[in-house]
Amino acid sequence: MGRWEPDARERLVRAALDLFSEQGYENTAVAQIAERAGLTKSTFFRHFRDKREVLFGGQDVLADLMTGAIAAAPAEARPLEVVEAALVATASTFTDERRAHGPQRLEVIASNDELRERSALKMVGFAIAMTDALKQRGVPELDAAVAAELGVLAFNRGYERWLETGGDFAEVVRRTLGEVREAVASLEAAE
Amino acid sequence: MGRWEPDARERLVRAALDLFSEQGYENTAVAQIAERAGLTKSTFFRHFRDKREVLFGGQDVLADLMTGAIAAAPAEARPLEVVEAALVATASTFTDERRAHGPQRLEVIASNDELRERSALKMVGFAIAMTDALKQRGVPELDAAVAAELGVLAFNRGYERWLETGGDFAEVVRRTLGEVREAVASLEAAE
Repeated sequence: MGRWEPDARERLVRAALDLFSEQGYENTAVAQIAERAGLTKSTFFRHFRDKREVLFGGQDVLADLMTGAIAAAPAEARPLEVVEAALVATASTFTDERRAHGPQRLEVIASNDELRERSALKMVGFAIAMTDALKQRGVPELDAAVAAELGVLAFNRGYERWLETGGDFAEVVRRTLGEVREAVASLEAAE
Repeated sequence: MGRWEPDARERLVRAALDLFSEQGYENTAVAQIAERAGLTKSTFFRHFRDKREVLFGGQDVLADLMTGAIAAAPAEARPLEVVEAALVATASTFTDERRAHGPQRLEVIASNDELRERSALKMVGFAIAMTDALKQRGVPELDAAVAAELGVLAFNRGYERWLETGGDFAEVVRRTLGEVREAVASLEAAE
């Protein structure tokens, strides 16, 4: 337990997820997470505001990547092309390390009502952020909302698929959005 | 405050919303709600499990109405026609009384992170319920998920519009879903 702490963040995430799985999220204190990681509480708080942020940190970064890509898309791009660019722009955050933690993270969230609610709000936040960014481009409000919802659906499903298959998140999420668009087309196709 | 309590539920909702607005949801105790309504705590608990249920009660009823209508839709109905039937089936619960409380209810929810999260999860719950019910009809999984998401979007927007305009919820939500479908078509239309 030296004072030089390489990978402190990664060790804290690992320790937190293991404790959440073993004894429940609600029964786990920050002090225990730090102890399990062989670090101090103050080191924990340099990386995370609280234990919930271990699971949901990075939401603002993702939303900023999405909205930045939407603002930067070519003027002639159609709304769903713009949404594709938004999803692809998040790919840099989907690292191997993140993938290694992903399934356990989803299990912990699924096991706790508070965390499921927080997760649902995260997706609403992405939908609102993308809707607003699309409206800034002049996309009509309802078109923007529909495109953003389809984007969030593809983002979620793409994430789960990427946890299973690995590979480049950008490629996985692009393919998933393509399938969502095909599903939309089949819903509205003539019999 | 006699022992015969007509409209106890309505009085409790009114008292709860007023207290939530005046002093904050988190600062309001069930005992205060009962007192403001001129009723006892035990009367409160005959109507609601806790103060949160004043805001979110009825979710199961709505989900059951949706899934019941999906199961009962004609075999030849297309997925989005089935979703329309699901939304329309909830109309009986959207009474004048509910409309009178609606705007204040939305304000209270918007002012509190926990309640916003709960509200988001409620919508996720509807999406999951409709997706599962559509899959039971043999709709492919992704088509079912997309149709359900579009339905939830129309449900939400239809609800907000109905609070503004009043009238028959069935009519409002049907029109809103029609507009969502037009937006979908315009997103995918050739330039």
